Amino acid sequence: MTRVAVDALGGDNAPGEVIVGARAAAAAGIDVTLFGPRGLDTHGLPLVETTGEIDMADKPAEAVRAKPDSSLVAAVRAVADDEADAVVSAGNTGAVLAAGLLHLRRLPGVLRPAIAVPIPARQGPSVLLDAGANADARPEHLLQFAHMGSVFSAELLDVRRPEVRLLSIGEEEGKGNQLTVEAHRLIRDDERINFGGNAEGRDLLRGAADVVVTDGFTGNIALKLLEGTIKELLAELREEIRATASGKLGGLLIRPTARRMRKRFDPATYGGAYLLGLRGLAVIAHGNSGADAIANAIKLAARGVEHGVVDRLAERLPERVGV
Amino acid sequence: MTRVAVDALGGDNAPGEVIVGARAAAAAGIDVTLFGPRGLDTHGLPLVETTGEIDMADKPAEAVRAKPDSSLVAAVRAVADDEADAVVSAGNTGAVLAAGLLHLRRLPGVLRPAIAVPIPARQGPSVLLDAGANADARPEHLLQFAHMGSVFSAELLDVRRPEVRLLSIGEEEGKGNQLTVEAHRLIRDDERINFGGNAEGRDLLRGAADVVVTDGFTGNIALKLLEGTIKELLAELREEIRATASGKLGGLLIRPTARRMRKRFDPATYGGAYLLGLRGLAVIAHGNSGADAIANAIKLAARGVEHGVVDRLAERLPERVGV
Repeated sequence: MTRVAVDALGGDNAPGEVIVGARAAAAAGIDVTLFGPRGLDTHGLPLVETTGEIDMADKPAEAVRAKPDSSLVAAVRAVADDEADAVVSAGNTGAVLAAGLLHLRRLPGVLRPAIAVPIPARQGPSVLLDAGANADARPEHLLQFAHMGSVFSAELLDVRRPEVRLLSIGEEEGKGNQLTVEAHRLIRDDERINFGGNAEGRDLLRGAADVVVTDGFTGNIALKLLEGTIKELLAELREEIRATASGKLGGLLIRPTARRMRKRFDPATYGGAYLLGLRGLAVIAHGNSGADAIANAIKLAARGVEHGVVDRLAERLPERVGV
Repeated sequence: MTRVAVDALGGDNAPGEVIVGARAAAAAGIDVTLFGPRGLDTHGLPLVETTGEIDMADKPAEAVRAKPDSSLVAAVRAVADDEADAVVSAGNTGAVLAAGLLHLRRLPGVLRPAIAVPIPARQGPSVLLDAGANADARPEHLLQFAHMGSVFSAELLDVRRPEVRLLSIGEEEGKGNQLTVEAHRLIRDDERINFGGNAEGRDLLRGAADVVVTDGFTGNIALKLLEGTIKELLAELREEIRATASGKLGGLLIRPTARRMRKRFDPATYGGAYLLGLRGLAVIAHGNSGADAIANAIKLAARGVEHGVVDRLAERLPERVGV
């Protein structure tokens, strides 16, 4: 049974929703252990007692060093100590990254870890990375992200020869900022990557490619923009519909449709993002995760373990990426 | 009467839709002159005969030098020669920028022009800049964009003391890439700017601020992502609604709502983007503009002239921005 360590204090709705989500994942056959303070009512799930808490406003690297026994750091360390196969936290993303770098460490050959997020595109899920692990990137980082995304897509989404595109401001090779133009050349010249050229922002939700590569600054803005726009648009539609009687009736009739769309585009459906490039698997759930999102994040982590994502990356990256 | 020079060959639907849009703008009281090949049927509008055409695939700076008598370059030059008060093109954005730099030249003190685009946010329009004039930027460019956006918002959107935010990956001052972190300090320390701190991608459509500042790479990706996501989501909703009988009826009832939303979020409603920082006014319309979008872009240009946007920038920038 796959063992997943869960940070009970991570996220806006912790610990309540985290515990409910963890129980749902346990009921689905995953060996879940919660990390949190003594006396926490886990409704029967095993608890590793921790002291201290890292919150959203803490400076990641400092907090991880200052609070080694916090729920977040202890849960990450459980993977390093082989007491768990993966860790899930809806807490401070930077702190999960910092704890991962400190305790799990990078896989050999990996320059920088990346956050990989599945996008619910119309043509099936595509993977966006880096969604925010590193705000500044060099071209060779983007090349590695292209490899990591390819492994992710092949192993977890069963795509046979994943097509990779580079997010830029025009499809032509010369379009982009310096970083993108140089990365384009590196990725294009690597024959082991199935490179489809540049993708533009407008293609992201339609399904630009199996793997969309960008730096963590652009990727994070793009991801939040996508989520915010979908949320805002559906909210606006609801509001407009309620404003008239015929609209209200129409809204009632299209409710199943609206609900299906909301669910499909809800980040909770995907649950979380993988932190790739470390010697252990970490899944970062949304800060505002409810119980469903937590349960899905734990399942995502278990799925990553079952597919041996870390081993696949370890096998392929050093061979695929010259460092 | 405000004189607007229009590139008849710019955009995917040129010259047909451009001419129809130009006639609509002329009917609204604007003195429109078309720039295009001899023999073009302008339906009575004045034509300046040009030779050659710059297309979307042309390299901007090269094309502008190689084709000085093309419709795009000639229309821009008309503003430099005071034969027109503003120019509108739905053609190659880079070429409009290159022609502007060459023939109109930058206003004194301006380091880089910027493309300013109104975003139809829920809390009223906000201005995003730079939406793609420069793929790479330095912190002092972003400071200037903050000033230019403030002038735009005050003069054209009648906002009294426009709030400026910097697009980044977290609200805290230290969040962002190197460029953003340094720009944050510069903008914060300039007391003439009403700075509200960082904004995240998720806030863009809700209405993050009166002015949202970013580099041209991020801004262009953000803008296209916003447009693409809205389009894709509304298309998907339509498709889903058509799939069931009750959905079809419901769809019929909410049709006025859907139409209103489509219109509000349609880039054609706004018509175009201003190219700010030059000694003359240029409006860049969407490449896929139809007649309505062209007409709106021409009206936007005329409005910019009537509000003396170039003079306001000229007056305020050198005084406001230390170079």
